Amino acid sequence: MSEILFNAFDMTCVSHQASGLWRHPQDQADQYNTISYWTNLAQTLERGLFDGLFIADVLGMYDVYGGGPQAALRNASQVPVNDPAMTIAAMAAVTNNLGFGLTATLSFEHPYPFARRMSTLDHLTNGRVGWNIVTGYLNSAAKGVGHAKQAGHDTRYEIAHDYLDVVTKLWNQSWDDGAVLRDRERGIFTDPDKVRRIEHNGPHFSIDAIHLCEPSPQRTPVLYQAGTSKKGRNFAAQFAECVFLAGPSALVARDAVRALRTEAAHFGRPREALKIFSLITIITDVDDASAQTKYEEYRQYVSFEGALTLMSGWTGVDFSTYAPDEPIKHIRNDAIHSAIDSLTVADPDRVWTIRELAEHAAIGGLGVTFVGGPQTIADKLEAWVDETDVDGFNLAYAVTPGSFNDFIDHIVPELQRRGRYKTAYKPGTLREKLFDTSEFQFVKGTRRESTETYVKRRP
Amino acid sequence: MSEILFNAFDMTCVSHQASGLWRHPQDQADQYNTISYWTNLAQTLERGLFDGLFIADVLGMYDVYGGGPQAALRNASQVPVNDPAMTIAAMAAVTNNLGFGLTATLSFEHPYPFARRMSTLDHLTNGRVGWNIVTGYLNSAAKGVGHAKQAGHDTRYEIAHDYLDVVTKLWNQSWDDGAVLRDRERGIFTDPDKVRRIEHNGPHFSIDAIHLCEPSPQRTPVLYQAGTSKKGRNFAAQFAECVFLAGPSALVARDAVRALRTEAAHFGRPREALKIFSLITIITDVDDASAQTKYEEYRQYVSFEGALTLMSGWTGVDFSTYAPDEPIKHIRNDAIHSAIDSLTVADPDRVWTIRELAEHAAIGGLGVTFVGGPQTIADKLEAWVDETDVDGFNLAYAVTPGSFNDFIDHIVPELQRRGRYKTAYKPGTLREKLFDTSEFQFVKGTRRESTETYVKRRP
Repeated sequence: MSEILFNAFDMTCVSHQASGLWRHPQDQADQYNTISYWTNLAQTLERGLFDGLFIADVLGMYDVYGGGPQAALRNASQVPVNDPAMTIAAMAAVTNNLGFGLTATLSFEHPYPFARRMSTLDHLTNGRVGWNIVTGYLNSAAKGVGHAKQAGHDTRYEIAHDYLDVVTKLWNQSWDDGAVLRDRERGIFTDPDKVRRIEHNGPHFSIDAIHLCEPSPQRTPVLYQAGTSKKGRNFAAQFAECVFLAGPSALVARDAVRALRTEAAHFGRPREALKIFSLITIITDVDDASAQTKYEEYRQYVSFEGALTLMSGWTGVDFSTYAPDEPIKHIRNDAIHSAIDSLTVADPDRVWTIRELAEHAAIGGLGVTFVGGPQTIADKLEAWVDETDVDGFNLAYAVTPGSFNDFIDHIVPELQRRGRYKTAYKPGTLREKLFDTSEFQFVKGTRRESTETYVKRRP
Repeated sequence: MSEILFNAFDMTCVSHQASGLWRHPQDQADQYNTISYWTNLAQTLERGLFDGLFIADVLGMYDVYGGGPQAALRNASQVPVNDPAMTIAAMAAVTNNLGFGLTATLSFEHPYPFARRMSTLDHLTNGRVGWNIVTGYLNSAAKGVGHAKQAGHDTRYEIAHDYLDVVTKLWNQSWDDGAVLRDRERGIFTDPDKVRRIEHNGPHFSIDAIHLCEPSPQRTPVLYQAGTSKKGRNFAAQFAECVFLAGPSALVARDAVRALRTEAAHFGRPREALKIFSLITIITDVDDASAQTKYEEYRQYVSFEGALTLMSGWTGVDFSTYAPDEPIKHIRNDAIHSAIDSLTVADPDRVWTIRELAEHAAIGGLGVTFVGGPQTIADKLEAWVDETDVDGFNLAYAVTPGSFNDFIDHIVPELQRRGRYKTAYKPGTLREKLFDTSEFQFVKGTRRESTETYVKRRP
């Protein structure tokens, strides 16, 4: 019975996974563009001993629904959306242990300046930064940078391989440990013999340069990935240290976890090398009845259109062209069906309509939503972990920061009583906190070693 | 007798303009990779009523000297160098009025994500951000992103025009004032009718997208530029609101200022639309003798090699191939001669050697260095402003934060007594603080208007 990991899930926008709830009187999501929202949130999360704050991002618009951006704009469906990297130093300044998982698309920026940005954040956070590797899924983002449409899905993963190759070489092979002397007596800041150029001529990126930063505490930020396609899973199985799944039912999540762990094993990676997080939203209070009342109150603020706008962006289906009561089974789209399949597991005979799917997704997106008091939620969380073999959860909010405060006040103590939640942070970097470094050691120097990151220490 | 403007000049690296002084016991430059260095500095500067902190940047290595990066690494000559954008939110969180001038090269990133980053910073700083537009001058940066060498100088300015065109359209034309309603009652966050796509098909950049951010306080960050070439001056005369010069003598600075103001007038821009800052380093103390003693003590830490490494990067001349006592006049290079000409104005008959040039540049780079007590320095500053027609100074440090503290403790009160330094911050954004908005109004909507920024209000 190990401790369950928890990341908070947020985004530098208004409507992240809960559509319409920005209208709730207690919701502060529309303060996304202030520093104090983020520093207050970071302090809250550290009070709650969260492992990290995971910040989602898109570099485009949800313009599938209705064939344009109108609904997304009206509902603030992940637009406007600010650059998530900009608040991390401010949050790091008011915390000591919280990790920061930064989403960054690699399709639209050269790896050389990006590698510097992540090294800088790793310095400033004292080794608490992670990188969620995203290849992008919105055509609007591609158009934003002058492409007629984004690169094909498989091509995007080829680019991702090459990109990761470049940045991990820069992070791990350009500056030796001990290269930086800071020797005031002899007047030597860096020993030039311990720094070398990275020469790389890949299919998509070329580089011939020294990394611009001295080695940061983690060198390579903790690598996150959320790919669920075949290519995405293959990529995650090789390189990711943390993986996010949006499994809306335990059976679906279980199958996804099993497939991922099996594929990782094929690459020689032990089970402990991969931490898997399941998307979840929790509505809680002192007891079940109060939680249910809160949930019903929240539902009054739900935006049907906002939920479908996000769903259309995620699935590529324009739901505005269907009647709300149309059964979803009539729509032929793999992404739809994976969402539906997961819902229907619990009740195979139920016919889901578009409206019902939207109502489901309006709080919690494509993840699962648990409603209940401390006992109920703790039971469900333990059961989910047991059934699915995930390591933890990515906790989205219905109302921010209320949902996080509720979790900290009601659920954390109960999980601690059960021995399923940490009572203090471990020392060290984010990687050292997440992984048992007495069992694993970090091997630097080659691409394979530096990106797969951990290998079992031989006795 | 208007107030003299002051920016602090720093860089997220160890040896910025003072070579070797990182070894001084009181110098904290090697703390460049911590948040506290930057938040402490920002608070210091706000105590001193500085207009802004201007952060330089390079995305490459000073590898001209000796034909490689060895000397730059040894002396920490602007390497390692972190991403300067990452600390701005943390500094903004502990200040209320200080501006932040961020240097960002536009040659290596698409304008779409860059426009979002600057809008984000403008939100988080509450309208206190500026952008120093740089086209890059180090071949090593171009090689870093896979080019054999950087684009030609003129081409870089063509790219800069196109880039500026895209980002100012995104900032000013995509979201109308009043587009964002935050209307919780009606459930409308943004009125879609007041948001539009930017379609741009320029010679270098294409875009077809809505800007990702809601309008920030300034929309367009205050535009800084440091170009001194003919093309650079032309660019600054059209678009820059603040310009930096590294005039090492008053006569040279005077001529540069005159040329720039004349060219700006040709573009219909009034004198007040352009604030010009001169690079300066000040060594001061309670009186002249103490300042001189301090200067002599600082000089013991100077690195001759470090100074020549920076000089080689700035001029393109490998000084390691010349004897230290060789007269500089023997070297045929325009950049050298402009530096030398400016030095020789005071003493036309003096023959400068490479060693002497390095000693001059080791504290203060290519700018001027003033040494003296409060009266002497204030006299010199006033005389410089009168002779050159600059609006203020870009204050580099010899020892950080010591040089800034010395300036605040000794020079600011003297300038205030003379009515040449503000005694409190003006309210408003950085642009509103720097410019007299009772005389000028900001006109949005077209490229010309949004980048030239201010036009005289007609009575």
